[in-house]
Amino acid sequence: MVLRAGIVGASGFTGAELLRLLHGHPEFDVVLATGDSQAGSAVAALYPSLAAAYPDLSFESYHRGLADDRGLDVVFCGLPHGTSQQIVPDLLSGDRLVVDLGADFRLKDPALYPRWYHAEHGVPELLAHAVYGLPELFRGELAALGGSGLVATPGCYVTTATLALAPLVEAGLVETTGIVVDAASGVSGAGRPPKPNTTFCTVDEDFTAYGLLEHRHTPEIEQNLSHVAGQDVQVLFTPHLAPMNRGILATCYARPTGTVTTESVREVLRAAYENEPFVVVSDEPPSTKATLGSNAVHVTACADERTGWVVAIAALDNLTKGASGGAVQAANVALGLPETAGLPVVGLYP
Amino acid sequence: MVLRAGIVGASGFTGAELLRLLHGHPEFDVVLATGDSQAGSAVAALYPSLAAAYPDLSFESYHRGLADDRGLDVVFCGLPHGTSQQIVPDLLSGDRLVVDLGADFRLKDPALYPRWYHAEHGVPELLAHAVYGLPELFRGELAALGGSGLVATPGCYVTTATLALAPLVEAGLVETTGIVVDAASGVSGAGRPPKPNTTFCTVDEDFTAYGLLEHRHTPEIEQNLSHVAGQDVQVLFTPHLAPMNRGILATCYARPTGTVTTESVREVLRAAYENEPFVVVSDEPPSTKATLGSNAVHVTACADERTGWVVAIAALDNLTKGASGGAVQAANVALGLPETAGLPVVGLYP
Amino acid sequence: MVLRAGIVGASGFTGAELLRLLHGHPEFDVVLATGDSQAGSAVAALYPSLAAAYPDLSFESYHRGLADDRGLDVVFCGLPHGTSQQIVPDLLSGDRLVVDLGADFRLKDPALYPRWYHAEHGVPELLAHAVYGLPELFRGELAALGGSGLVATPGCYVTTATLALAPLVEAGLVETTGIVVDAASGVSGAGRPPKPNTTFCTVDEDFTAYGLLEHRHTPEIEQNLSHVAGQDVQVLFTPHLAPMNRGILATCYARPTGTVTTESVREVLRAAYENEPFVVVSDEPPSTKATLGSNAVHVTACADERTGWVVAIAALDNLTKGASGGAVQAANVALGLPETAGLPVVGLYP
Amino acid sequence: MVLRAGIVGASGFTGAELLRLLHGHPEFDVVLATGDSQAGSAVAALYPSLAAAYPDLSFESYHRGLADDRGLDVVFCGLPHGTSQQIVPDLLSGDRLVVDLGADFRLKDPALYPRWYHAEHGVPELLAHAVYGLPELFRGELAALGGSGLVATPGCYVTTATLALAPLVEAGLVETTGIVVDAASGVSGAGRPPKPNTTFCTVDEDFTAYGLLEHRHTPEIEQNLSHVAGQDVQVLFTPHLAPMNRGILATCYARPTGTVTTESVREVLRAAYENEPFVVVSDEPPSTKATLGSNAVHVTACADERTGWVVAIAALDNLTKGASGGAVQAANVALGLPETAGLPVVGLYP
Repeated sequence: MVLRAGIVGASGFTGAELLRLLHGHPEFDVVLATGDSQAGSAVAALYPSLAAAYPDLSFESYHRGLADDRGLDVVFCGLPHGTSQQIVPDLLSGDRLVVDLGADFRLKDPALYPRWYHAEHGVPELLAHAVYGLPELFRGELAALGGSGLVATPGCYVTTATLALAPLVEAGLVETTGIVVDAASGVSGAGRPPKPNTTFCTVDEDFTAYGLLEHRHTPEIEQNLSHVAGQDVQVLFTPHLAPMNRGILATCYARPTGTVTTESVREVLRAAYENEPFVVVSDEPPSTKATLGSNAVHVTACADERTGWVVAIAALDNLTKGASGGAVQAANVALGLPETAGLPVVGLYP
Repeated sequence: MVLRAGIVGASGFTGAELLRLLHGHPEFDVVLATGDSQAGSAVAALYPSLAAAYPDLSFESYHRGLADDRGLDVVFCGLPHGTSQQIVPDLLSGDRLVVDLGADFRLKDPALYPRWYHAEHGVPELLAHAVYGLPELFRGELAALGGSGLVATPGCYVTTATLALAPLVEAGLVETTGIVVDAASGVSGAGRPPKPNTTFCTVDEDFTAYGLLEHRHTPEIEQNLSHVAGQDVQVLFTPHLAPMNRGILATCYARPTGTVTTESVREVLRAAYENEPFVVVSDEPPSTKATLGSNAVHVTACADERTGWVVAIAALDNLTKGASGGAVQAANVALGLPETAGLPVVGLYP
Repeated sequence: MVLRAGIVGASGFTGAELLRLLHGHPEFDVVLATGDSQAGSAVAALYPSLAAAYPDLSFESYHRGLADDRGLDVVFCGLPHGTSQQIVPDLLSGDRLVVDLGADFRLKDPALYPRWYHAEHGVPELLAHAVYGLPELFRGELAALGGSGLVATPGCYVTTATLALAPLVEAGLVETTGIVVDAASGVSGAGRPPKPNTTFCTVDEDFTAYGLLEHRHTPEIEQNLSHVAGQDVQVLFTPHLAPMNRGILATCYARPTGTVTTESVREVLRAAYENEPFVVVSDEPPSTKATLGSNAVHVTACADERTGWVVAIAALDNLTKGASGGAVQAANVALGLPETAGLPVVGLYP
Repeated sequence: MVLRAGIVGASGFTGAELLRLLHGHPEFDVVLATGDSQAGSAVAALYPSLAAAYPDLSFESYHRGLADDRGLDVVFCGLPHGTSQQIVPDLLSGDRLVVDLGADFRLKDPALYPRWYHAEHGVPELLAHAVYGLPELFRGELAALGGSGLVATPGCYVTTATLALAPLVEAGLVETTGIVVDAASGVSGAGRPPKPNTTFCTVDEDFTAYGLLEHRHTPEIEQNLSHVAGQDVQVLFTPHLAPMNRGILATCYARPTGTVTTESVREVLRAAYENEPFVVVSDEPPSTKATLGSNAVHVTACADERTGWVVAIAALDNLTKGASGGAVQAANVALGLPETAGLPVVGLYP
């Protein structure tokens, strides 16, 4: 039985990526794509890349009850933070799966949202019900949803840093303070609307740091690592903007708790990801390009005896595994479908 | 029944793209990938993008009879020109489909190969048997192969220019002399081996013409247009190198034979491509990015009353529709499979 | 004696490029930079690339009489079309040189501005007084200004196409109808303000045509070529957007009037540019990257006996020779300074 | 009096950049450019960007005594490590300044070269005589050369990391162990010869780490920081390759020794660089693009009370300030010329 899927906030990059992935998904039929600013115009006019696949789909305006009207089994939300919390309660009123790609339901501690997003949360009581949509850490919780409820998928940097560090933290191999996550992202992470810092002439041939000490993915990385550590973990996170469309590479630094070698830390990664369909543990430094357009994550680690550091590195496509692909993967698990359904594992190269 | 597929010359970019596409193809099982210079090494070592999909596949050396030994139903050849003519006779000795992505069997007139490739052809008697693998022009001939024989797929620029111009030439709307094809390609068209003119520092932030008056795709464009015109067509072709990985845009200029309008030339394109699954006729100028990683071709045309020109433009991904995707499409037709099997129609965006 | 220079409309890319070039110019002292939307903020805040050179310069608002107040000897205007025509009369009221980089005073025929810019011209009586600021064609007229009056510098595509074709047209080697100019530009040609079609995620890895049949540089190319031909010349112009910051390459097609060879057309270019300090005639196809950041223009040509075409190609940096560098060169001539003063002839490579 | 300058190893990128800078230098006349692999061919054939400036210069082969034959006052060496140590003794036999841009004479401790470069040093006795060519740290030593002797200019990453960290280390504000330097470079840092990892199709749209734990700039960064600290400093250095031509950004992490604030660490930078002509201390995160083609360095720092880290960031152009520009600056000081002579401080933007 093919499920009826809708995308609320489909005009952004994560929406377009969902449309790309769901077109190749054997179990979903996209019957709704909302985009208030584009309402009434053809999806193919905004994204000619979708013209051959969706010749007749147009953006609609969202209104209360729309998901019921259309009989949606699953809704993906690709809305800016602060917006999905206004809509999710309505979506959840039906017996369906709601997968939120935004930031509103990711942080478990109700004190964190106001502190990092500088606004009150509208429905803090929902935070406890949201399942964090990272199957590599929360597969059981996702499966337990049984096809309905709320999934909050991780931030793109968060998936990257978490998959690099979690096995090492969980194994107690590294200290839980003093961790540094130094990461670089392609420009699509900043979204579709034109801004001074995302024009070609600003970005091309440029590399720069941004959001020093204050990036909102910081508490989310800490939440994940604290979860696997069983104690508070502290992270300093520095994001950079690289002149490319897609891709995130996180280079993470942590202090070993005891004697480690490059081989021993890699072995921990290999053991942790042995049965993961999307995680590739490699001896070579991962490259974002190897993951372009696929749901794969490439991970490695090494240990430096000389200076006393463990370095763990992960690469992925921020729009696929880092956003829409990860969301489809989480939805697959939550809906009892094969976890890899509709998800490319081959990157576009070159 | 899944067919056993092999790729001879799999270490180049068209080989890697074939591996990408065949992994998602429901009817093919890749059981052989040769690459003499890489023999013995893992496919995933050269192309980490394929690591999750082909964890155990390694490049092998080619030897006579290998296709028989492996029981191949279909072989794709991604070899440099001059090389596949040495191997294809051996491959054809079995009852199988051989799809050659190189230049050796494209030109029908035996005089053309030596003139444009500056070498004698080793098996000119095979030229008449090769079916030109452009389904939009030769669908019937491909289907008539009934699953065995030789298909020669077009050059990447050739597919682009042909699909822009053929309907206009066939309809007699434009003159058959004085046609100009001005095209730009991404760098992957130059292949994988490092060369001075394909290093990042040469290409990035550069735009340049090359192969002035002498590019080998010229006679092939003329052959296709002459075929649909029923008379000799002459084309001046100027390729350019653009700082991008993939994509070809061909902007073509032809003289109208009578009164035309932008609307009338577009209508001819729309009628010609009405039932084509991969051709999108648009009112907006096509963009290579809209076709990234997909088998789609975007086409438009306009007419300039003031200066007396018809301009026809096509865009596609040179490695997908322009090479490996087009080859799979031709193979699908020749094998009696659904023409779109395994072929993405959604481009990666952004 | 160092001249007092001002830039009106200094916040755009041509303004920033003027600031770059004038900082290295021995005869100019920049004492004014206006930018209404940025008034009050430091130049270095908008363009950190200028921080070390102009630590104390801030954008000001323009008002009537400002050029007199500051005792300006020369004013460069980097304003959008339609805007400089409102300001130039005020600037010209003093005895100074006004160099307009915009489109308002380029077209000599008063009927052309309304036809191509879809607006009435505010001061059409000034058109006859403006000297067209392309020293390679109008050096004498510029020198005759004697340091005061109005110079209208060419559009970026116009300089490129004109320098490729003018010697061939002037020598009567090619026909004056049926000329095609097919050109590609870097993204800086579209200006600084963020727009949907200039974001990194739209442009990077994309190549597309735009402004089909209607680009406003068309009549200006025709005006220049008609000037050297002594009769009306007609041109079809197709611009493309390439994923790079700077650079224009124009590939131009014209019909020979008689027998020509590649050598004979190149010889005409060599003779025409023998004493030009910024024009390099080469046997290799020009590359935009070879001109990056310099005021050089690279030109070549070839003749195709087979199809009966002459192809002429030119490359330059759209912001340097194509805009601000060309403007400084014209100002140098008009002010009686050495023509090359302050103008780099070495491109940044890589 | 104009000095006679030669470039040994002029065919590489640092050689081309030296030719660019020296063309605009008022005190140098380039009379020799060697490049063994290119001997006999025109400089303009390899670098068309230099065609207008050096129409008649050709690469020559190097031979013993060549610098004497040509009466060189100053020689810049742009040779691979291991090669300049074979030539420098010959060059030093005359009374001239030799500025080596390679790695052979940078490390003071004779044990370090074999350990990091895996080869014996041919003339270890020269190490003590070489002055380290970073004027911001060794201005006095350079000036004391009085126009003759040997200067070893820093590695590109080294200049970047040193200028970010040195004032903080020197002031005792940060601990001398546990320092992390995480940096990204444009592709020109890998040199001109085509390699698999520098082709456009490998690099474009990719971000990756390389040389994990083993990059040869590590001991050089430690040497500089140890020099200013007056004690051993240990650094973990992770370089990354970014898809751009030029530019290095180093994001450096160090533990504060006491209470610091963002304002207090910035104040230390401002005080240290108050009179430096090429160092800009900013409140905004530095951007490599702001330094493109200029000799400027942009630096900032901040302190994170929450996690206990100081972050210091520097950006520069790896070929200008990071190599050839830094070398010219050092030569200017060593020759008693104005330190800024011939060195652009305005970056090319965009």
